[in-house]
This record gives sequence, C-alpha cells and structure tokens, in this order.
Amino acid sequence: MRQTCNRGIAHHKKAFYSTKAMEEVTEISQSKMFGGFNRRFRHQSSSCGCPMNFTIFFPPQLDSKKVPVLYWLSGLTCTDENFIQKSGAQRVAAIEGVALVAPDTSPRGLHIEGESESWDFGVGAGFYVNATAEKWKNWRMYEYVTEELPKLLTSNFPQLDTSTSSIFGHSMGGHGALTIFLKNPLRYKSVSAFAPICNPVSCPWGTKAFIGYLGENRMLWEEYDATALVKRYKGPPTNILIDQGDKDIYHSKQLLPENFVEAVKEANGPISTTLRIQSGYDHSYFFISSFIEDHVSHHVKALSI
Amino acid sequence: MRQTCNRGIAHHKKAFYSTKAMEEVTEISQSKMFGGFNRRFRHQSSSCGCPMNFTIFFPPQLDSKKVPVLYWLSGLTCTDENFIQKSGAQRVAAIEGVALVAPDTSPRGLHIEGESESWDFGVGAGFYVNATAEKWKNWRMYEYVTEELPKLLTSNFPQLDTSTSSIFGHSMGGHGALTIFLKNPLRYKSVSAFAPICNPVSCPWGTKAFIGYLGENRMLWEEYDATALVKRYKGPPTNILIDQGDKDIYHSKQLLPENFVEAVKEANGPISTTLRIQSGYDHSYFFISSFIEDHVSHHVKALSI
Repeated sequence: MRQTCNRGIAHHKKAFYSTKAMEEVTEISQSKMFGGFNRRFRHQSSSCGCPMNFTIFFPPQLDSKKVPVLYWLSGLTCTDENFIQKSGAQRVAAIEGVALVAPDTSPRGLHIEGESESWDFGVGAGFYVNATAEKWKNWRMYEYVTEELPKLLTSNFPQLDTSTSSIFGHSMGGHGALTIFLKNPLRYKSVSAFAPICNPVSCPWGTKAFIGYLGENRMLWEEYDATALVKRYKGPPTNILIDQGDKDIYHSKQLLPENFVEAVKEANGPISTTLRIQSGYDHSYFFISSFIEDHVSHHVKALSI
Repeated sequence: MRQTCNRGIAHHKKAFYSTKAMEEVTEISQSKMFGGFNRRFRHQSSSCGCPMNFTIFFPPQLDSKKVPVLYWLSGLTCTDENFIQKSGAQRVAAIEGVALVAPDTSPRGLHIEGESESWDFGVGAGFYVNATAEKWKNWRMYEYVTEELPKLLTSNFPQLDTSTSSIFGHSMGGHGALTIFLKNPLRYKSVSAFAPICNPVSCPWGTKAFIGYLGENRMLWEEYDATALVKRYKGPPTNILIDQGDKDIYHSKQLLPENFVEAVKEANGPISTTLRIQSGYDHSYFFISSFIEDHVSHHVKALSI
C-alpha cells in the first residue's frame, strides 16, 4: 500500500548518519502520571532530515506484559506535547493498558524560507504527506509516521507491541489518522478522529497545503484525501468513530465530515462510520478531553486488550 | 479574621471606578467541556488596581440548581488557564456538580520595575499576600481571593452558591489555599493541596517573596505561613488532604510538608492532616491530574453535595 513519491534530496542525507546513529533516541523528560510515565524523546529523523521529538505514555501494565500502541496525530500548530498535556487520555490508557504515542506535526529547525510564515503551512503543519515539491522535500510526515517511527519504536522499546496498533487524531491529525489507516488497513486495527479534515482537496486548508507540498497534480492530492480513499478501500471491515462539535467554527468550511460519510455510503463497502455531532462543542482540547474515553475504548476493543 | 495591613495607594484607585464599573465582568472565551462550560472572564480589580482574568468551570447541574464553589489557586508562573487546560478536574466536577473557580496568580500589566525579572517574584508570583511594601502595593492577592472575587461571583453569577465553598491549590497556590483556609475557617468548608509550600518563612521561595512584599517584619510573615497558622487555628474540626510527590525536586528545600504535619501534631487541635507521599511523582500537572479526583471528592464530601 506504500505510495511511490519522489523521495528527493532529503534521503541522501541518510548517508550522513550511520544506521546506529539514526536509531538512537534521547530521553528529554519523563513524568509519572496515573501510575504510568509520559516520556519525551528526541532523535535524528531520516525521513525529515532533522531532529524530531515524540512522546510516549507508557501505561503501568508494561511491567508485566507488552502493551499495544495507539498513535495520536495532532492538529495544526501543535507539537507532540499538546495531546500529552491536555487530553487526559492517559487516565484511560492507564486503566486499559495501552501505550499512547504522540509524534510532532512537521519537521522543525530547518530554516526553510517562509516555513513559519503561516500557521496552516510549513512548521506545525506537515499534513502527514510526503511532499514532492523540492522546497519542502523534508516534509515527509507520512513516511515518518507510517515507517520510521514504528521501526524506531520496535528497535528501542521492546515493551511495546508495535505489531498491534491503532491510530487517531484531531483536525489535521484526524485527516492524518484517516488517510494513513485507509492506505494501510493491515497495519492498524482501528481508526477514529476528532473534528478531522475529511476532504482536504475541497477545503482551503487542504488545497493550500497540497498545492504547496504536492504541486498541481490533483491525482496525487487524492492519495491523501480520506473522502477519495474510502471509495477504494479494500481492507477488513471496520467502523470509524468521528466526533464533531457543532460549535466548531471550522466544521462546514474546512472539516466537511458529511462529505466523508456520504462517500462511505456511496462506497457501500467494508467501512462503516459513526459520526457523532456533539452539541455545543468547539474545536479545542476541551472538546477532545470530553470524549477521549470513548475513543480510547473504541480502540481498546479493536486491539483486543 | 481579616488582617489589618496598610492598604496603600492602590486603594485610592477605587475612586477612579464607579461601583458598577468595578463589578462588571467581560467574558473573554467559553468552551463546552464534559457537558459544562469553561468560561474565562476579565474585570477591573479594585484590590490589584489592574484588569484581572479568571476562569470558571460551570458544571451541567447549574441548569437545575445552584452549585457550590471550589476555588483553585495556582502556582508560580501560572495564570488562570493552566489548571483549566491541564488538570482534568472538570471531568469530576461535572459528575459531582461543583463549580471550579481559577483566579490568576498576581497583578499583570502594571509595568512595575523588575516585575518580570524573576519567575518566583512579581508577575505570576503573588503568593496570596497583601503586600505592604510601597513598590508592590498592587500585590493584594489575599484580599483579591478572599474578598473581591467572592463578592464579584455573588453579584454576577447567581447560579453559584458562593456561601458554600472550599479551596485547594498547587505549590504557591497550595500555600495560598492552606493559609487562606486557616485564617478564614468559617468561610471555607474544606481545604486540600498538591505539593504546597507549607512553611514559607523557612524556605528560599517564601523568604524571597516575604522580604520583597512584606519587608523585614517576621511577625507579619507568620500571618501567611501555614505551619505557623495551624498552631493557633480555632475553627471547626477538619482534615487537610495533602499530596506530595517523592520525585518532586522542590520537596525538601521549598515545600517542607513534614514541618506542617509536625505543627499539626504539636497543636493537637481540631486539625488533622493526611499527607500522602506519592511514589515516583514530580511537581507537574501530570502529578496533579493523577490525583485530582481524590481532591475533588474530598471537597464534595465537605460541601455536602
């Protein structure tokens, strides 16, 4: 299911690091929480050609067994820390015995001209694609999340059962979770999302990002559009849980969950979706934390914990 | 129980605002969470002589009845937002039907020389005292929390039962909660604290703050020292819950909970204390969120909800 893109110059940078060095991770911080530990790490990413941070919540159960992995992909402007500090997911993960893995949302510190001019493009806005535009060749968050990070976890954290994983996310990260799941249905047991960008080829955030990272080839855009991808999904049957606040100012212009639900219906395939419109809720982490327990439970069921 | 301090020039500023204007609060933002609402407000404080922000979490129960109030006092460098964004307390407050009120930690925007030079003095470091030093005359967080804010809540939010309230806090805010409770035992039903500064007259944070805000008069310092105050407490019997992480780097130098427990024993009075040393936990909100449910439950019991 891996897509073939121009890998660009970023990958030649691999030559500058030995395989060993690439696999090294350095712990930046750790804090106990609900009997488990939030541990923040930094490593040199071969996909992105720069140092990247990520945080893992290790639940207390790993003292006695390997635990499955639930990836969280964050939204625009976020780092790996927002979810860890604000979602409250660790409370449920500690009860259920699942590890939470939160990567960053883009390369950082590369000093690409204009990389920090917009909050919805460049730094903090990787959109979980492999960029083909020469200027943004380091923006390979799709490869980073689907290949480099899982391999890194497998080689560095034997207490994680990386072969048993699921994925969820918020907004841009909800788009990331949906598209990554739909393109790799055998790699993840389940997917869910909070206020995901469901049809990026049809919204301002998505078209801006895709023109910038992928150029004018609209066929390529559809490789990263959940509403397009769901029509040709051939994986196992699954239900996708989506929560969307009805006071979310981005709902009707940027997120378009109704387009995704319509595409699921049209496809009439192995995917079903549960779209819950949550009355009064906005786009914030206050919304996420209110329903995080439902989402973790959704994944726990699929992960057969 | 109100202490008499030199009220200073800040109070003459009252003349510049009509009573009506002083009572006006402006909503800055609101977000639904766990069926209730986080609402952030701004008002012109007569105690501090500057605009102050505070946040209230209104639980869903207030649609049908008045709800009691649980004040949270934050630690050094915090604003009214840290607790609201990171503690997860709203989940429990929404179940139990108690409002959470989080004020800021100091005056801001007054441009006092040196007010932002230290993270442990000045802005973000009000220490819940009424400063007597002329330079810091606006630092009247004791009066703000115990008088101005409750009156403001009473006049602006009839859905809050402000006559039924409790108080808790973290670190500097734990010191604030303990001292405010001990000085006003009939005003609050209960108190608890996370990693409180228990004996500020004996630690570097406290002595720096007290010299700066209160001058060299050590008798006055003891008016704001929980370990001193508990020895002369004459209020109703109560149990004080304190959680302290054993990996908290400030435990033995700045927080000194053992001094407080010793003073409680010596006093042999109506106060008892439950000091829980939590293995592996540090000074962060990850620690707070891990035990916030126990603290809210402690207060819910006292508030007879």
